[in-house]
Amino acid sequence: MSAAEILYEGKAKIVYKTDDPNILLAHFKDDATAYNAQKKGQIVGKGKMNCTIAAHLFQMLETAGIATHFISQTAEDDMQVRAVKIIPLEVVVRNIAAGSLCQQTGLELGTVLKKPLVDFHYKNDALGDPLLTHARILLMEVVTETQLNQLIERALQINQILANFFEKCQITLVDFKLEFGCDADQVLLLADEISPDTCRLWQKGESDPSRRVMDKDRFRRDLGDIENAYAQVMKRVLAQSA
Amino acid sequence: MSAAEILYEGKAKIVYKTDDPNILLAHFKDDATAYNAQKKGQIVGKGKMNCTIAAHLFQMLETAGIATHFISQTAEDDMQVRAVKIIPLEVVVRNIAAGSLCQQTGLELGTVLKKPLVDFHYKNDALGDPLLTHARILLMEVVTETQLNQLIERALQINQILANFFEKCQITLVDFKLEFGCDADQVLLLADEISPDTCRLWQKGESDPSRRVMDKDRFRRDLGDIENAYAQVMKRVLAQSA
Repeated sequence: MSAAEILYEGKAKIVYKTDDPNILLAHFKDDATAYNAQKKGQIVGKGKMNCTIAAHLFQMLETAGIATHFISQTAEDDMQVRAVKIIPLEVVVRNIAAGSLCQQTGLELGTVLKKPLVDFHYKNDALGDPLLTHARILLMEVVTETQLNQLIERALQINQILANFFEKCQITLVDFKLEFGCDADQVLLLADEISPDTCRLWQKGESDPSRRVMDKDRFRRDLGDIENAYAQVMKRVLAQSA
Repeated sequence: MSAAEILYEGKAKIVYKTDDPNILLAHFKDDATAYNAQKKGQIVGKGKMNCTIAAHLFQMLETAGIATHFISQTAEDDMQVRAVKIIPLEVVVRNIAAGSLCQQTGLELGTVLKKPLVDFHYKNDALGDPLLTHARILLMEVVTETQLNQLIERALQINQILANFFEKCQITLVDFKLEFGCDADQVLLLADEISPDTCRLWQKGESDPSRRVMDKDRFRRDLGDIENAYAQVMKRVLAQSA
């Protein structure tokens, strides 16, 4: 690869161009942010752990028939991915009530939902990533109704695959955020990452609301022992993928 | 009516019990609040004006086939209404982008929507009346799917009737908030009020974003001349109803 030109630098990743316009290189950083970047910090080794976890989960999803942007992990914290135009929606799938769902509905933390909930947030830092209804998404013409239904269906499929996998890792998949994009041929691909930065993961069977947390909530809520939690997730994902 | 027992005191109204358990008396106050009661004040004569405006609009809607809780206006600022169990949803119908829709979508103030948008907010002051998606409403079991569809249909019918009426008053109906309730026989009735407190009303044809405002935004945004604006709305509604 030639001297890399930065296409985009986000909060947790730097995306570089490569010689091939259809291929990008995603570099995973240790930087951590929360609450729309009002809280900032570093999680030592996060870049390498998240890149490795995401690589394994993307490969597993591909095997299960879900198209992703993942090509290969080229270094501990580098991943080759297909270039996509990101759809500016955060697709959040929830199995258990936590975070903003509790704040915005009054549902108690830990309430098991009768069926998975798919929420959409507008990927717009300036507006604070607001929740969007289907009607607002269509009004704003972010996607068409067909694409919206496709996103919901795809998100629910991914949820089923991931929840089953994490269950085997003795981890409860509480909720997670997905981003999707379209490649040059307008094929819908799962993009971004899947990691403890983008999922709520609880130690299976642990009811203590601080001890069970194995994800970025340890950083958000200053629960400490963040690196260990990420390392545990990586270890179990690798063991289960082997 | 005997010495009145207060059933409920809200920000803009006091609701009294009457001798008949199926009938309540709503007293309209001059008190004005905004931004979830962070801003407080008084609009002189508002109680009488809003009660009169709401009475006329309820009567017009009844004539057009919309069931409401309205029975009769018993004083300038008092209205007899049917007792209902209020559904804890604020049903907001929008024809033109304004207020929180702009803040949460980036749509420019004044954008004419391709078709009316029905938004639902959870009527819960402690949570800040958050926006709810259909999926969240059903998950929370606030209403059933059948009731949700009925609310949307009813809200759109009311929008058409009100928009046509205000058009004749030389007023553009930008958006408005409705509340519904069920009476003892589980009949769905339009409740609360329809007034410059609950509608965005713009002087038709006026493009100046301050001058055109004929509703509570004059209070919210400290535009002055609030009483005059409400009086203008009342005058035109009465003239058009005559």
